[in-house]
Amino acid sequence: METYKSIIAYDGTDFKGFQRQAEVLRTIQGEFEGGLKRIGWKEESIKAAGRTDAGVHARGQVVSYVLDWRSQEINLTKALNANLPADIAVRDTEKAPAHFHPRYSARSRFYRYAILFAKNRDPLRERYSWRIWPIPSFETMTEITDWIIGRHDFGAFGNALAEGGHTVREVYRARWIQTMDGMIFEIEANAFLYRMVRRLVAAMLEVGRQPDRKEEFRELIRDSSRRWEGRIAPASGLCLEMVTY
Amino acid sequence: METYKSIIAYDGTDFKGFQRQAEVLRTIQGEFEGGLKRIGWKEESIKAAGRTDAGVHARGQVVSYVLDWRSQEINLTKALNANLPADIAVRDTEKAPAHFHPRYSARSRFYRYAILFAKNRDPLRERYSWRIWPIPSFETMTEITDWIIGRHDFGAFGNALAEGGHTVREVYRARWIQTMDGMIFEIEANAFLYRMVRRLVAAMLEVGRQPDRKEEFRELIRDSSRRWEGRIAPASGLCLEMVTY
Repeated sequence: METYKSIIAYDGTDFKGFQRQAEVLRTIQGEFEGGLKRIGWKEESIKAAGRTDAGVHARGQVVSYVLDWRSQEINLTKALNANLPADIAVRDTEKAPAHFHPRYSARSRFYRYAILFAKNRDPLRERYSWRIWPIPSFETMTEITDWIIGRHDFGAFGNALAEGGHTVREVYRARWIQTMDGMIFEIEANAFLYRMVRRLVAAMLEVGRQPDRKEEFRELIRDSSRRWEGRIAPASGLCLEMVTY
Repeated sequence: METYKSIIAYDGTDFKGFQRQAEVLRTIQGEFEGGLKRIGWKEESIKAAGRTDAGVHARGQVVSYVLDWRSQEINLTKALNANLPADIAVRDTEKAPAHFHPRYSARSRFYRYAILFAKNRDPLRERYSWRIWPIPSFETMTEITDWIIGRHDFGAFGNALAEGGHTVREVYRARWIQTMDGMIFEIEANAFLYRMVRRLVAAMLEVGRQPDRKEEFRELIRDSSRRWEGRIAPASGLCLEMVTY
């Protein structure tokens, strides 16, 4: 028996999130454990770096599990890929120390959020982005993004996952990038609050459209007793890109 | 009553192709006509530029229909988009002459086929591409692409859609483009045979991997009594980009 760590990717559209729930609900964890069982896994549960929400995608989710596997790791990756549905895949697998925990051992998480500028619906793009119109001010959004970098109490933008947990998080880097027909938000932090990225994206977008609300945004960062009461950006645009150890 | 022409886009993944079939099968035509009915359309059938196959996508499919609409075309586009499922959308609508037929009036069709180079499955990319490995020779594929440009009998790569129809088609332009992690085939012709693009892509890819089979490919272009017996590239990579009138 060895502990293995796999980097997995998935299209979150047709899942009710990562965490296993009632049998009837399709989840990443449920499907991944199903694949593991088909290659002989007999444990109770896998561990994961982050419990992505319903509809959120991943290119770099990390899971770990204990398995009796008598072949190379590359063959474990292949065996799993042959036993997982088309919308989940293993990108890489390696052995990990027994004490490795994908969540508690993680030093940082890196997310991307994709926005598409388009007046009309676009069925070939909206699966992996948030379509918006009109176009917000890139300059304003870049300016206010600097305010979230560093150690802040992000209580205005979400709750801690564990009850009673604190809401201070450290953002290592954050930026908006312009693309041909949209923009991408990149953010890396030690950890994130529940729906924090999606709330930040929605709030920054509001300010990008109404630059006179900049100070309101700054107050949300400064004063964690406040709360972002606006919308939450849809799950389709969000992707967990990488977890660093 | 006026004749309208709409440019539509769709993610073909969850459709059994364009053409309406038995009620239980989900088709683009069936869904689009359903949307039209919800805004008062009472005719028998829409017309379309091309009957894309199951799983094939479109950014520039063209349909026409006769409708009694007492408002601007932009409002017709909006009303349709509000009445169509998320995987079909209208990009633009305009009035057309009564004799307009999206298929018979078309001068050319332009398709793109996307290939992704990756060893392992990629759930966030394979919906819109064909994942292959190992990487074929771009130079060889570019060289043989020149042979298909112009007027040829493409009988080796497909059948005419109408029984007894001839198999001569004129390719106006065709090229392979290298991307960051794959390649894209672009082809414009006056018309295409059934599954012609997907057969051409698969055949060119084979030659790209076995350049000593170049002459075999040339013979298929020269001698229409031959037949490409190899695989057909999967529908997921193909997209009808534009129809020109």
